[in-house]
Amino acid sequence: MPGKPTQSPRHRRRTAHSAPEAGRGSEPVAFQGEKGAFSQVAVRQLLGEVEVLPCERFEDVFRSLRDGRAGSAVIPIENTLHGSVHENYDHLLNYGLPIVGETNVRIVHNLIACPGVRWSRIRRVYSHPVALNQCLAFFEKNPQLERVPFYDTAGSVKMLMEQKPGDAAAIASAVAAQIYGARILKRSIEDDRSNFTRFFLLRRPDGVAPLPSGGDPKRWKTSLVFTTRNIPGALFRALSAFSLRDINLAKIESRPLRGKPWEYLFYLDLTGRVDEPAVKNALGHLAELADLLRVLGCYPRG
Amino acid sequence: MPGKPTQSPRHRRRTAHSAPEAGRGSEPVAFQGEKGAFSQVAVRQLLGEVEVLPCERFEDVFRSLRDGRAGSAVIPIENTLHGSVHENYDHLLNYGLPIVGETNVRIVHNLIACPGVRWSRIRRVYSHPVALNQCLAFFEKNPQLERVPFYDTAGSVKMLMEQKPGDAAAIASAVAAQIYGARILKRSIEDDRSNFTRFFLLRRPDGVAPLPSGGDPKRWKTSLVFTTRNIPGALFRALSAFSLRDINLAKIESRPLRGKPWEYLFYLDLTGRVDEPAVKNALGHLAELADLLRVLGCYPRG
Repeated sequence: MPGKPTQSPRHRRRTAHSAPEAGRGSEPVAFQGEKGAFSQVAVRQLLGEVEVLPCERFEDVFRSLRDGRAGSAVIPIENTLHGSVHENYDHLLNYGLPIVGETNVRIVHNLIACPGVRWSRIRRVYSHPVALNQCLAFFEKNPQLERVPFYDTAGSVKMLMEQKPGDAAAIASAVAAQIYGARILKRSIEDDRSNFTRFFLLRRPDGVAPLPSGGDPKRWKTSLVFTTRNIPGALFRALSAFSLRDINLAKIESRPLRGKPWEYLFYLDLTGRVDEPAVKNALGHLAELADLLRVLGCYPRG
Repeated sequence: MPGKPTQSPRHRRRTAHSAPEAGRGSEPVAFQGEKGAFSQVAVRQLLGEVEVLPCERFEDVFRSLRDGRAGSAVIPIENTLHGSVHENYDHLLNYGLPIVGETNVRIVHNLIACPGVRWSRIRRVYSHPVALNQCLAFFEKNPQLERVPFYDTAGSVKMLMEQKPGDAAAIASAVAAQIYGARILKRSIEDDRSNFTRFFLLRRPDGVAPLPSGGDPKRWKTSLVFTTRNIPGALFRALSAFSLRDINLAKIESRPLRGKPWEYLFYLDLTGRVDEPAVKNALGHLAELADLLRVLGCYPRG
């Protein structure tokens, strides 16, 4: 996919890779969770305020994009505390929907209540148990608050705004407060400020524009998956395809293949574009060594 | 730690590495969660029926072991759907408590109710939202059931046995049903049968016996963490320490260091014992190349 010198800068801004038009008009952006979930924060970072399609499961997100109910999709792929979302790597392999962008969202938890409800009145706090457990210092400082588990962070704000209890609050994103018209009573009550989730933006293959030409290839990333039959020599040789060409790796992770002892799947992100000669050659070299090799996408660094 | 030929087989069975006596007597086994959590299933697989110390947070588990309130600890380290538990890798580095065993637990969800409560009466099902979401096919087949989020899988069984509702059930492990005296109405209602969690058994450094002598070193694993300044050449050279000595790797994973772009932490598991000459030499070689190198433990494969 060499860059096309005939593309105007204006046209370039409108490719899938910079993607300002995704989600506009009739093709919403699919994500997993209720409106106001952290995935929607990622949608806004990537695309601005666009129409969205909340889905119950990750697989529904991939199906919506494949079947045309969504024009793009945003999925979490790894978190600094909880690791890689293997389920989404599986869907990336099975559905073949290319990655065209990435972004990192800091997980900021806010205490949110209905307008007019005062902090001094709050006795119960609803949220997903994972979010409640990420705010333990806040609850230790405020023992008058009872923690009540709920399905979803954003869903707990939605529920408050429907039922309007005078003594309850929720823990969720600032975007959830804004969407449901609720008020933030306390900002950033999470224990750990270095909790980040990385998200991918996906398109259908036919919706991906050619890579824009020019610019610094080091501002791009390429993600791939490959398998080798056993690790010791095989991974070392596989990595030689990159190190011999001075290609930087930004991620490598092994994952045992189910029911196949000694066979591994590797997730690898490299710094560079899939259309650079060195990267092309490295992928050709790796294809000789790997049983399976799939490029998941090439996208600007988030 | 060369093996001692004077150890009798009986004594060998009682070392920390095979660990049958951990948790017996006055030193319980710490884990995160309520009694009956999947971590306790791991405790039973590793040590049998022993005294346990349930803790609220992962860090409490490490503190309990360090401070002597527990004699050993069991922590989850990775899951086939959700990836590595980075938080526990951080605690392993910070607390320096060695890994002396591992086991894999299949996450089997069961529908559990109080004795005498019939399946036809059940209308509400309590559990942690993650567990509820891992049984979606079951709920689709049984639309009469309302899903009610709760803090904890095992905790929802405990609550049922305290409150004895006639129309409610919980989703949790079989161990939770046994511990609280509840009954399993439906076994194995999870969507995905290949959902496994890998757990580590930890001891205090002074509680670790020498490695037993003899046996097949390939039945052992050694886990380490190291950092390098940048990936391309550095990781390749680091892996050469193992591949040049034909040492098998069972896991490799990179993790960006917070606030230090281009610096990475690597988790690596190799097949073999830390006292084998080839492994010793590889670790010496790696120490020349890595900024930080820490052996987290050497233990029999689970």
